[in-house]
Amino acid sequence: MGKRIYLDWNATAPLRPEARAAMVAACDCIGNPSSVHAEGRAAHRLVEQAREKVAGLVGAEPRNVIFTSGGTEANALALTPALAPSPGEAPRDLLLISAVEHPSVRAGGRFAPERIEDVPVTQLGVIDLEALRLRLAAVGSSGPGHRVLVALMHANNETGVVQPVAAAADMVHAAGGLLIVDAVQSAGKIVCDINQLGADLLVISAHKIGGPKGIGALVKRTEAIHIGEPLLKGGGQERGSRGGTENVIGIAGFGAAAAAAGTALARDRERIAALRDRLETQLRVMAPDTVIFGAEVERLPNTTMVAVPGIRTETALIALDLAGIAISAGSACSSGKVASSPVLSAMGAPETLAAGAIRVSIGATTTDRDIDAFLTAWRNVIAGLSKNRRGVAA
Amino acid sequence: MGKRIYLDWNATAPLRPEARAAMVAACDCIGNPSSVHAEGRAAHRLVEQAREKVAGLVGAEPRNVIFTSGGTEANALALTPALAPSPGEAPRDLLLISAVEHPSVRAGGRFAPERIEDVPVTQLGVIDLEALRLRLAAVGSSGPGHRVLVALMHANNETGVVQPVAAAADMVHAAGGLLIVDAVQSAGKIVCDINQLGADLLVISAHKIGGPKGIGALVKRTEAIHIGEPLLKGGGQERGSRGGTENVIGIAGFGAAAAAAGTALARDRERIAALRDRLETQLRVMAPDTVIFGAEVERLPNTTMVAVPGIRTETALIALDLAGIAISAGSACSSGKVASSPVLSAMGAPETLAAGAIRVSIGATTTDRDIDAFLTAWRNVIAGLSKNRRGVAA
Repeated sequence: MGKRIYLDWNATAPLRPEARAAMVAACDCIGNPSSVHAEGRAAHRLVEQAREKVAGLVGAEPRNVIFTSGGTEANALALTPALAPSPGEAPRDLLLISAVEHPSVRAGGRFAPERIEDVPVTQLGVIDLEALRLRLAAVGSSGPGHRVLVALMHANNETGVVQPVAAAADMVHAAGGLLIVDAVQSAGKIVCDINQLGADLLVISAHKIGGPKGIGALVKRTEAIHIGEPLLKGGGQERGSRGGTENVIGIAGFGAAAAAAGTALARDRERIAALRDRLETQLRVMAPDTVIFGAEVERLPNTTMVAVPGIRTETALIALDLAGIAISAGSACSSGKVASSPVLSAMGAPETLAAGAIRVSIGATTTDRDIDAFLTAWRNVIAGLSKNRRGVAA
Repeated sequence: MGKRIYLDWNATAPLRPEARAAMVAACDCIGNPSSVHAEGRAAHRLVEQAREKVAGLVGAEPRNVIFTSGGTEANALALTPALAPSPGEAPRDLLLISAVEHPSVRAGGRFAPERIEDVPVTQLGVIDLEALRLRLAAVGSSGPGHRVLVALMHANNETGVVQPVAAAADMVHAAGGLLIVDAVQSAGKIVCDINQLGADLLVISAHKIGGPKGIGALVKRTEAIHIGEPLLKGGGQERGSRGGTENVIGIAGFGAAAAAAGTALARDRERIAALRDRLETQLRVMAPDTVIFGAEVERLPNTTMVAVPGIRTETALIALDLAGIAISAGSACSSGKVASSPVLSAMGAPETLAAGAIRVSIGATTTDRDIDAFLTAWRNVIAGLSKNRRGVAA
């Protein structure tokens, strides 16, 4: 097997050199950040320096960054009826989530299942803002006691479709609600500023921006926002929001990755978008019946979710993997199983088409040659399909 | 400032070289363990190899190891009324915890506060087995529907006192209950075998055995034990018990640390115990009114919790830190604050004595010279005390 080509950056991004260096350096930091001696204070400083960098990536204040073990924990922590704009307010009694959220959001955290409702998306994968507006109005008219939490991702992990978060935020706030934004896929790929988005809470994950797996953050827009009961209780770390000895090495890597991602954003974004656009142009040339999901709306610059009628996802994944190319069926968060995408179902994509969808997601080190190699391999997959269509044995 | 001497291994242990090497190597493993392509499968293998090593340290089967973000999360996950010896059994309705458990256990996880009860410890810091027996009998006689979960740590983090876990396990099982054992402080320091202990669930943490901070495990004795609802829902990782992309680098470090700790145990234990015994002998020579907590009972070989009447913990910590020596007031899990120990309170230690307690905890790389340096510095602390007692300005 020759050199592998990794085109599955939305599943997880390779570690940035800056993150690696920071983690190796942090291996020598022996203290527990909660200890008062010099070793403890050094570990504490390392965590706080990383907190500043992570906060900087999303335009937040460092004291409003709560480190967690990843995006999943951050979502689980934030999705609670106890969430309040300030301590002592009445609990939220309804969670509205877009139909294309990540499974860790769709699980609803500490909301009872009967208190969770979907908001549909359009065929292009964008939240139906009119449906959201109507639902918020209905909740508002059912009495002043109702308080809503809305979860809307910044960009979809499968299609890359960017959601109209700022517009949704205005609606949610006008209705007295709070908005949590899962920015796991957008951070580091497009500008992701908690204030510009109008998010009350933002969720990010290190390993999607070139940091290590197993570390993420829940970011609050203002210090006043009250999370309620922590999910992990114990030593009172993270200002009481999250107990447990801090993942110092992971946090150091997260901080370095956040700083590097912030610096690289403007530079990489255009280059990556150009690569992706060339890829999509060629895909359509190769097979005119190619469907690129969400292509008509704003998307992340690095993501292509594509299907060609007649191609099966599993066949394509295996063929490409054997050709040395790593891509995905959509989300990698389903423990190795290749199932058709709930995101495409929510968009109303025909099952026959959804059953053949693959996701190509690229990143900072992707080259023109990588795209060419993918196109060559994809041409072979399509050629195999043509043979099958003609009934000729391969 | 010269070379520092680190004597706070119970707060966190320095990273073992084996763990460091495994983590650096894992930095090159770019895949998501849930991805089906070669990169994903490589990451998955790395996680599973580590799982075998962690299981090996505690005599468990690899498939019964659930990786978490640390001991705190493992305790939070396990402490749930839904815990059952097999799926579909009635929930637990009472949680009995020893009075000297770690705060992450004392928080009680998903048990309502009114369903949590303390079991006292003796003045030597050992659980009062007779009190446990009586409480279990009372619960049993209150009806067959009652099901108890008991949490008893293997060794105390502050005093190092080893609890009679196997005896407690027999009682708990005879009463139809389940036993969860927090082995965070004992693993790697003494033999810690889930079957010998009779624990139904065991909690361990990487950073106490020379692995990285931010990774731990909940270990089940048998596969049949059912955790109920996961705390973190999402991608179905860890066989559905814990969602979220795996902390691959941390897990690799945990595995390597577990293997190294297992190998080193027999060799290091005697040497460490000899160092600790010499330390304690000298402490008593230096000040005959020295109190060593739990000295009359079985303790971890590496831990000394000590007080000399008249010495204040904070004064001692600062003086020793300035002298280049890192020790602790007890647990490091209280966000930097130096408060008197709830463990010593539970043991009925006089407040005046508890207010001066310090913990010296040593490990694999501690030397005779480190102990000598500590003794010299401690002599100065006591000398300062003598001056104060005589009313002479320092």
